[in-house]
Amino acid sequence: MANAIRALSMDAVEKAKSGHPGMPMGMADVATVLFTRFLKFDPADPSWPDRDRFVLSAGHGSMLLYSLLYLTGYDGVTLDELKTFRQLGSKTAGHPEYGHCPGVETTTGPLGQGIANAVGMALAERMLNARFGDALVNHFTYVVAGDGCLMEGLSHEAIDLAGHLRLNRLIVLFDDNGISIDGDTSLATSTDQLARFAAAGWDVTRVDGHDPEAVAAAIQAAKLTGTPSLIACRTVIGYGAPTKQGTEATHGAPLGADEVAGARAALGWSHAPFEIPTEILAAWRSAGSRGADAHLSWERRLQSADPDTRQAFLDGQRGTPGLGLDTALANLKASFAAEAPKIATRQASQKVIDQIAPVLPALIGGSADLTGSNLTKARSQETVTADKFAGGYIHYGVREHVMGAAMNGIALHGGFIPYGGTFLVFTDYCRPSIRLSALMGQRVIYVMTHDSIGLGEDGPTHQPVEHLAGLRAMPNVNVFRPADAMETVEAWACALADTDTPSVLCLSRQGLPALRREAGDDNPVARGAYVVSGDVERRDVTLLATGSEVALAVEAAAKLGDEGIAATVVSMPCWELFRVQPEAYRTQVLGTAPRIAVEAAIETGWERWIGETGRFVGMTGFGASAPAGDLYAHFGITVAAIVAAAKEIRTSKGE
Amino acid sequence: MANAIRALSMDAVEKAKSGHPGMPMGMADVATVLFTRFLKFDPADPSWPDRDRFVLSAGHGSMLLYSLLYLTGYDGVTLDELKTFRQLGSKTAGHPEYGHCPGVETTTGPLGQGIANAVGMALAERMLNARFGDALVNHFTYVVAGDGCLMEGLSHEAIDLAGHLRLNRLIVLFDDNGISIDGDTSLATSTDQLARFAAAGWDVTRVDGHDPEAVAAAIQAAKLTGTPSLIACRTVIGYGAPTKQGTEATHGAPLGADEVAGARAALGWSHAPFEIPTEILAAWRSAGSRGADAHLSWERRLQSADPDTRQAFLDGQRGTPGLGLDTALANLKASFAAEAPKIATRQASQKVIDQIAPVLPALIGGSADLTGSNLTKARSQETVTADKFAGGYIHYGVREHVMGAAMNGIALHGGFIPYGGTFLVFTDYCRPSIRLSALMGQRVIYVMTHDSIGLGEDGPTHQPVEHLAGLRAMPNVNVFRPADAMETVEAWACALADTDTPSVLCLSRQGLPALRREAGDDNPVARGAYVVSGDVERRDVTLLATGSEVALAVEAAAKLGDEGIAATVVSMPCWELFRVQPEAYRTQVLGTAPRIAVEAAIETGWERWIGETGRFVGMTGFGASAPAGDLYAHFGITVAAIVAAAKEIRTSKGE
Repeated sequence: MANAIRALSMDAVEKAKSGHPGMPMGMADVATVLFTRFLKFDPADPSWPDRDRFVLSAGHGSMLLYSLLYLTGYDGVTLDELKTFRQLGSKTAGHPEYGHCPGVETTTGPLGQGIANAVGMALAERMLNARFGDALVNHFTYVVAGDGCLMEGLSHEAIDLAGHLRLNRLIVLFDDNGISIDGDTSLATSTDQLARFAAAGWDVTRVDGHDPEAVAAAIQAAKLTGTPSLIACRTVIGYGAPTKQGTEATHGAPLGADEVAGARAALGWSHAPFEIPTEILAAWRSAGSRGADAHLSWERRLQSADPDTRQAFLDGQRGTPGLGLDTALANLKASFAAEAPKIATRQASQKVIDQIAPVLPALIGGSADLTGSNLTKARSQETVTADKFAGGYIHYGVREHVMGAAMNGIALHGGFIPYGGTFLVFTDYCRPSIRLSALMGQRVIYVMTHDSIGLGEDGPTHQPVEHLAGLRAMPNVNVFRPADAMETVEAWACALADTDTPSVLCLSRQGLPALRREAGDDNPVARGAYVVSGDVERRDVTLLATGSEVALAVEAAAKLGDEGIAATVVSMPCWELFRVQPEAYRTQVLGTAPRIAVEAAIETGWERWIGETGRFVGMTGFGASAPAGDLYAHFGITVAAIVAAAKEIRTSKGE
Repeated sequence: MANAIRALSMDAVEKAKSGHPGMPMGMADVATVLFTRFLKFDPADPSWPDRDRFVLSAGHGSMLLYSLLYLTGYDGVTLDELKTFRQLGSKTAGHPEYGHCPGVETTTGPLGQGIANAVGMALAERMLNARFGDALVNHFTYVVAGDGCLMEGLSHEAIDLAGHLRLNRLIVLFDDNGISIDGDTSLATSTDQLARFAAAGWDVTRVDGHDPEAVAAAIQAAKLTGTPSLIACRTVIGYGAPTKQGTEATHGAPLGADEVAGARAALGWSHAPFEIPTEILAAWRSAGSRGADAHLSWERRLQSADPDTRQAFLDGQRGTPGLGLDTALANLKASFAAEAPKIATRQASQKVIDQIAPVLPALIGGSADLTGSNLTKARSQETVTADKFAGGYIHYGVREHVMGAAMNGIALHGGFIPYGGTFLVFTDYCRPSIRLSALMGQRVIYVMTHDSIGLGEDGPTHQPVEHLAGLRAMPNVNVFRPADAMETVEAWACALADTDTPSVLCLSRQGLPALRREAGDDNPVARGAYVVSGDVERRDVTLLATGSEVALAVEAAAKLGDEGIAATVVSMPCWELFRVQPEAYRTQVLGTAPRIAVEAAIETGWERWIGETGRFVGMTGFGASAPAGDLYAHFGITVAAIVAAAKEIRTSKGE
């Protein structure tokens, strides 16, 4: 049965003229044991909530997964799909892509991400289990990871967190083949991986990855431990390839016709390319149907659960925030309208979280060790610990990267809406995971505070200047920079409502005055940009701004008004949402008067909004260490500078 | 003497009303032992090449370093500077900044970076020692790292690499205080750090960080081992603060007047704020002068070295690439002019490296396990190993982040010009280190290949689309995207010549035709953009492009010419260099005709060049998995699309 995986992998890579045959051939035995004897899954319903999760962290070995999905009978994963491996429009992309091919639990390829997603999945399983019990939630998360995954720094953050939380339903099968792209791993690493994982509190063992009984015994033992488990599987990369096996030559290129023929002979596989003998396919399909009974029993348990529990479980799975949320947000907006608080948007965000956490049990918060700065923990949230998974708040530690990757895993698992905080400048530390949130279309909410030089004394290492531009450049991410408490509520509402897009909330450290004094029923932030002060029609100049700089623009507009210059201020909390508004709305908001943009960040991207004749008041390079007020003055992001730019732009236009 | 550090740290934070007193107070004893008994340094010459390096990886504890620099007598680090801690224009920024304050070896604050820089420094020391011997190069690298540094994934990559290379001159003093911002570290981690470092091949020990003799004995022992060393120093954060010590309350905020008074009493320190008793200051200054004799002996050894060796050493320190380099590059350009090779720019880069490595001994190459794909290893380069540091090529492993951070350390150490490769998409994995290359103004060369959907079958996880925009948004980074072999040589020439700016070379996977057939003496890439085909004056439309898309633009221009439309093509290999050209040159290159930009990436940033009326031919979202040619056709980045856009833009202009 394992040779069926090897043959399909060789053949598909050969036909595509590109791909990675070495890993599937090396791990075929391990995968066969896992899929035929342990994995709880039902190819007829890839979204069954209580299935075991299988994560191919070494995503380049995608043919291992595609072979398994075909052999076990996933709908739509046909032989024809395997024959169009890596071709435009096929389900069998070069690396496994979530949402693109049934049975793919997460998009992998960027190394280290899969194992970190799996930590999130295994954590989600325990958290959901704490809420709904063994009858509804009781599954394992299996990972295949290679040497590359374990060299990436992200793997440290992942195993550190998993060990700390004693995620005993997490089992990592390490493809311990001693080969990476440059050659033998001894070129680059000398780490004793078993000792390393043990240091993080994992149960560890090593087996011959080509001995099915040894692999089975190790998995069986791993299922019973009270900690996450690492099973190092000694394998031969490209197992069966007569001259290339055990070398990097099998890693990332087709074997070639002669070598494939030789491998067929060595493996005793006499069948034509893409041909699987009936009895072998039948054996695989039988393995694929193993889970049907378990699935049926689970459905029965769900039906016999009490109605409230069932409803709560299904609501969580559907990810519908629910009516309580709308009321909570509306109440908060009303109180902000009444009180007009001058608070930092991170403080406003804290108030949002305090309001919504009690009515939104699916909400799972956290911070990368900046809880008191990000203000991410609701009063009602208890900390998630290894002894108590019922809580709603995760201390991710100083580990931004696994925070992002685990949130992806939590969102993919289902049942939860994760959010997590750090300083905006440290989005750089988790950018690969933000990108995967975007590529997979996951509702992950990044709460990024201290969003400009307004951070002050900590200096340029902690002050984002290019991060807004960098995040706005990423496809399918909504970047919000609310201007006051009201906009912060509305940005949160958008982030919670958009089930297919991650959001980055960029929040101020410093207090900001309330701009809007009426709550209203609509959500102008959802339109991306809107006129916040001044006349929509009659204007001499338009001031565009986001976040903490909107108040400066409003003040500048007042000064300009005193001098007879009509300045209209547009708050632009989310460019991405504005860009998809009807053209008539966009034209109306932007107007035809000359434009000045104000943002305590670099200009990149603003050219789109201000045009060739516009002006920009903002940063031109890195920040500095000083109190925030001094920095705004030093870098010339002031009311006076906006007023001067407005006069200058009118002069240069001959007005 | 240690209490002098504690008092200065408390006082400076108190006066600044912000900062981190806990770490300096906790590590004062350890630092006193290190600086008074072990560290080889000469405050009179902070750039003495053979000094020991001291890296404060836990950069928030900056007052520890500033106190030491003042106490030991660094020129310019005065009491007045300590009194203006964290104020605009002072040397004593919130976090230590390289180039801003003498004695600061590297900019730290983003956690994990310092320890990874130190790996690069310790590696540079061994590599320079292999070239120049013990007489000229013989020093240690000491690091103070906290719990946060060790939680970051980057720390794994750093200790994995350091252990593998057995960097025995690297000694890490772990501030093992069990506290991070959120509280006790047991909230977030259960890792046994000693076991973890041991698993990576380090020598490890634990001492009481408030027992000077124990600390001294541990450092003495660590100096003698054949591996890097971890000394876990059990400390009390905020040592001396009567009610707050040992808690997170001392981490990142002033202690407050009462607590400071209490600490003074507890420590028996009766002196006024910022007042250091004469005899204690004298003792510190005496410690500061310990190194003068060693420095003098070293100078004598340098003078008595043979002239060629001395010259080579000094050239390396000055970072002057030398005449041989110019000749090598000129020869290569001449051969490319003669042969007009159609090769990928990564292949052209390989030829550059092959030419320059033999004449530029300071060059240190490497790749994050993609050597055969990045084409970063010169034929003449031998691999650097734990047994042989004379080589010029480092296998960084699948560890992009430490590659960037170690290159920063190698560049900061002096004597070398580091470059390193991975796929462009994985700049995300090392973005925090690229940012620090830029902030510190270090000549670090990032060789980033597979720079677009031209990567092909590996799919969207491996295809950069937003990375050019994201890198161009970062201050002080030169982003090069050469269009052919000739431009690749010229981009390398720029990168090597600019001593204060990191460069990112974005190179194609796929072959590109030769555009320029004359080598010439000038370097048009150094001007950032230039007219590569068509008339400079008379033009109906201007096509702007970079890298692999320049050839498409040239082909489209030919087609347009056939139809009587004069299209001029501008290659824009480096926006940053173009932006600083004289306005007359920029105006001449861009012309006044309508503009179309072509780049297989998202549009962000191009608005600056094409204006409101321009067109963009490129990507609008993530890529896909398919052969490169299919992808270009699928996403509409084709000659036909450029031609159509040119006609459309002329029509809409009424021409």
